[in-house]
Amino acid sequence: MNRLENRSVVLAARPKGVPQPEHFAIVEDDAPAPGAGQMLIRALFWSVDPAMRGWANDAPNYLPPVAIGAPMRAFSVGEVVASLHPDYREGEIVTGMFGWRRYALSDGSDVDRKVTETDLSPSLALGVLGLNGLTAYFGLLDICAPKPGETVVVSTAAGSVGSAVGQIAKIHGARTVGVAGGPEKTALCRERFGFDAALDYRAADFAEAFAAETPEGVDCYFDNTCGPISDLVMTRLSKGARIAICGTAALTDWSPIPSGPRIHRQLLVARARMQGFVVFDYRDRYPEALAALAGWVREGRLAHEEHILDGAAAAPGSIAMLYSGANRGKLLIQVD
Amino acid sequence: MNRLENRSVVLAARPKGVPQPEHFAIVEDDAPAPGAGQMLIRALFWSVDPAMRGWANDAPNYLPPVAIGAPMRAFSVGEVVASLHPDYREGEIVTGMFGWRRYALSDGSDVDRKVTETDLSPSLALGVLGLNGLTAYFGLLDICAPKPGETVVVSTAAGSVGSAVGQIAKIHGARTVGVAGGPEKTALCRERFGFDAALDYRAADFAEAFAAETPEGVDCYFDNTCGPISDLVMTRLSKGARIAICGTAALTDWSPIPSGPRIHRQLLVARARMQGFVVFDYRDRYPEALAALAGWVREGRLAHEEHILDGAAAAPGSIAMLYSGANRGKLLIQVD
Repeated sequence: MNRLENRSVVLAARPKGVPQPEHFAIVEDDAPAPGAGQMLIRALFWSVDPAMRGWANDAPNYLPPVAIGAPMRAFSVGEVVASLHPDYREGEIVTGMFGWRRYALSDGSDVDRKVTETDLSPSLALGVLGLNGLTAYFGLLDICAPKPGETVVVSTAAGSVGSAVGQIAKIHGARTVGVAGGPEKTALCRERFGFDAALDYRAADFAEAFAAETPEGVDCYFDNTCGPISDLVMTRLSKGARIAICGTAALTDWSPIPSGPRIHRQLLVARARMQGFVVFDYRDRYPEALAALAGWVREGRLAHEEHILDGAAAAPGSIAMLYSGANRGKLLIQVD
Repeated sequence: MNRLENRSVVLAARPKGVPQPEHFAIVEDDAPAPGAGQMLIRALFWSVDPAMRGWANDAPNYLPPVAIGAPMRAFSVGEVVASLHPDYREGEIVTGMFGWRRYALSDGSDVDRKVTETDLSPSLALGVLGLNGLTAYFGLLDICAPKPGETVVVSTAAGSVGSAVGQIAKIHGARTVGVAGGPEKTALCRERFGFDAALDYRAADFAEAFAAETPEGVDCYFDNTCGPISDLVMTRLSKGARIAICGTAALTDWSPIPSGPRIHRQLLVARARMQGFVVFDYRDRYPEALAALAGWVREGRLAHEEHILDGAAAAPGSIAMLYSGANRGKLLIQVD
């Protein structure tokens, strides 16, 4: 195999809170050659996800922190360019946790799946046909379990998870109220993602507008934010409400644990259920979900947006961009 | 029917937080005579319950507030002394929400049940064979659903609900850690209620002791307190933990909503579920639960304590006594 120039974006310093460009360095070397049972994957797109904040921080989480000097942990989709692995062949497209690396060796253990929707862009495997879509699918249908006619509220509703949550809720007969930041995003929610109502949490009359759009209370809340939006939603729970905790994007630092209104009495009076979930726990059910999601995409019932940054140089600032809300759609890096 | 001297304890002023003696007045008049479809119940015992704080306050709750001048809403057990109701006969014992009244008219709609365990004290119908036992039964078995070998933590563990939770959890094969205030109560937890460990939350080393007694984390938490005890428990959730929110006794004022550590990330990382429940929602399943509870009482597997105050004069101070933790066992008033 010819020499292949590799390029990785490594964690160079430990951030507190949202990683900034100075916490990363771009490192160049030669791509390794696969040994027996290994394959070499050439990345096509790197993913930028909220969970990466937690992975970069040295805080208790559901995965250990990324080591200083190691390539940033990230999801990626790429093409198998050389394989000594019996289950993978050159030319196959795979997605998994290959990190911010142009070339990654894999023994298959970090592969999420082979991407077989060859009629669709491989980048979708990092978004609506990847963890974003799967997160929306399981969090909404398994934790919130909306019934037809119920009111489903979604925060970060214009985002890659939130927009899918809203559309899947509509497909299941619910009424959807999206919460997003700014008139551009709320317009996107209404016009592109079909929310019945979309509210700008930055607007002065947000609380009044929210009450007006949830006259019978909130039956389901898909919570991507924590913080003030969630505090408001908790004041309007209907009896038997279900809250899926997917993420806490509104709070950038969990050490020490931030304070907020205690929610116990609201959960008690409403007999409500609040539950954290992590999509990886649903791995056994990915095929069911991906078949449904791909079907809805092909039928035009599950719209999605991608915001694609150009090359490794864009990676160090991309997590901060995500937390600033400046992206429009699923944030990706096209690997150069 | 002869003239019967009635006596009621009415809500005389609206408290904020825990009702004090000055919020009540004792009113005397004649007992009413039952009309068609009614019966007259002579109270034997009045109950004193944490929920009465909420009923006396003018705050959103799962029942409307008690009106000023009305008899305090309360559970009671009494004997039918006159009946024009086809389903009830003189001499039968009934329990229900008859209020702090010596004599109460009833059309049956406020009756919880006829008390048929005539081999046991009728007062048990307000405690271990009443809402306390039912609350423990459903909150533990339906919301927490402990598996054999799991660690179940209970706050206010020496109380009438907490002590039943611990014993029912043991009957189902769990390891039980009770949290209570002071060495007298923790000794009661260990010696009388059979907790595997009982910790004094007032002790200086409480956090360390709690960690030592939950080496593999907390699988189930039956939360009667909210506040600092719950904040500590939330730092030790095991994966897939279940938290039943039964009460919030540690916080005496919910208007405005008090602040505390945000729990979203702990629920998320542990994939934990937190759920409020209200025992009245399980009414259809009371017979199943009462049969089990009475069986365990008769077998000596479900110990219980009663703290009986003497007469109506004790009622005005009894809710404050309950919140001060000065009672030893289920707090009752023997009606004079």
